[in-house]
Amino acid sequence: MLHHFYQDLRYAKPVDRPFVACNMVTSLDGKVTADGTQPASLGSPFDRRTMGVIRSHFDAVLAGGNTIRLHPYYLGVPSHLEPLRENKGLASQPLTVLLTRSGNLDASSSVFTKAPRPPIILTTAEGAKHLPLAIHEQAHVEIMGNPDPHSIVALLSEKYGVQSLLLEGGPSVNYQFMEAMLLDELFLTLHPSLIGKRTDLGLSVGDHVLTSPETIQLLSVHQQDNELFLRYLITW
Amino acid sequence: MLHHFYQDLRYAKPVDRPFVACNMVTSLDGKVTADGTQPASLGSPFDRRTMGVIRSHFDAVLAGGNTIRLHPYYLGVPSHLEPLRENKGLASQPLTVLLTRSGNLDASSSVFTKAPRPPIILTTAEGAKHLPLAIHEQAHVEIMGNPDPHSIVALLSEKYGVQSLLLEGGPSVNYQFMEAMLLDELFLTLHPSLIGKRTDLGLSVGDHVLTSPETIQLLSVHQQDNELFLRYLITW
Repeated sequence: MLHHFYQDLRYAKPVDRPFVACNMVTSLDGKVTADGTQPASLGSPFDRRTMGVIRSHFDAVLAGGNTIRLHPYYLGVPSHLEPLRENKGLASQPLTVLLTRSGNLDASSSVFTKAPRPPIILTTAEGAKHLPLAIHEQAHVEIMGNPDPHSIVALLSEKYGVQSLLLEGGPSVNYQFMEAMLLDELFLTLHPSLIGKRTDLGLSVGDHVLTSPETIQLLSVHQQDNELFLRYLITW
Repeated sequence: MLHHFYQDLRYAKPVDRPFVACNMVTSLDGKVTADGTQPASLGSPFDRRTMGVIRSHFDAVLAGGNTIRLHPYYLGVPSHLEPLRENKGLASQPLTVLLTRSGNLDASSSVFTKAPRPPIILTTAEGAKHLPLAIHEQAHVEIMGNPDPHSIVALLSEKYGVQSLLLEGGPSVNYQFMEAMLLDELFLTLHPSLIGKRTDLGLSVGDHVLTSPETIQLLSVHQQDNELFLRYLITW
């Protein structure tokens, strides 16, 4: 396997909670959707390879219900990255964690039927009622009073030993973690495209302007063809 | 004066029309406004210096009415950049061009009262009626049937000898030029901040997904502290 610039990633784990990062690809005008969908094609094949390499460093990968409805795949790594994980003392595959308040998930999607490990579903009592029985059987359903970022991170840490969590959207999930000041790093792929449509979404979408982090430090810049791979360290 | 990486900028001028570029600063989540305003503070002091250096290469700088209402200044260069312009055969200061369909501009703003050259106002017959008399006296008012990008570029070229035009927003103006495939380069400053508010605007905002350019080539990447200065060549 060719060496990838994120292959030997090191990060400083907070002492009192898991490390949390986010990986997103956006167009030059800051969009993560095009005409309302989140096409897997927004990033390049190299970006998709990069996504796997970044996942290889994390105990768990979390996505929102809408994201997983659009891309119903296990948030794992290609098999050739499994030895890298094992050498670092991680499970062969990261845990897939899905956040859904509605419980609107499809039991026949490959995130459940082809999962190498049972996904974790974070939902409310109301959401759990809507989850198909087959999902209750194929996943760990966690019913939370309020599935806010701090509660999520605490639950994943205490019950599943998660020490590092990667967010992969959508925009609302990213926003909630930023609003909770629970984001240590941002991996941002800047894809050479322009979307322009006002209703398409950016990488972080919520009701208010976020509190400014104390610092956002640009840790590294890598260029591959016309795509940029940026890594930022955020302190709140 | 310290050398700036954009000081000796060269670009390929199209044979049949002016060269058109756009310069914008966005947050990491792609926003050019924060809570509805376009703060001059979104970029760093170095970004504002860069803005002047980029302007130094253009015959004219265009902004929309909303942008100029928020930042009512002549779209010029600091005086120390005037000799650089003169050495290249350009006027000491670029022409300021304002696009307003409504004619809602304030005659007492310094874009008119302190203008080194009379600004050009591009508007409709209806908009011209709303322009204060003082603006008619202090600016060149151009009444256009339809002030679309192709007509604008043709008028500026034929009547004012403009061979290079720099767009500085807002998002709607940028979008119109992208939609008309009249954008040759994008200067994008990526500022290390996160906005998050859904109603804030990105760098290009319109009704439809834009036609994809044939290529978007990343010409250069410069880092200054935690801010990135990117230059893209766009072919449609």
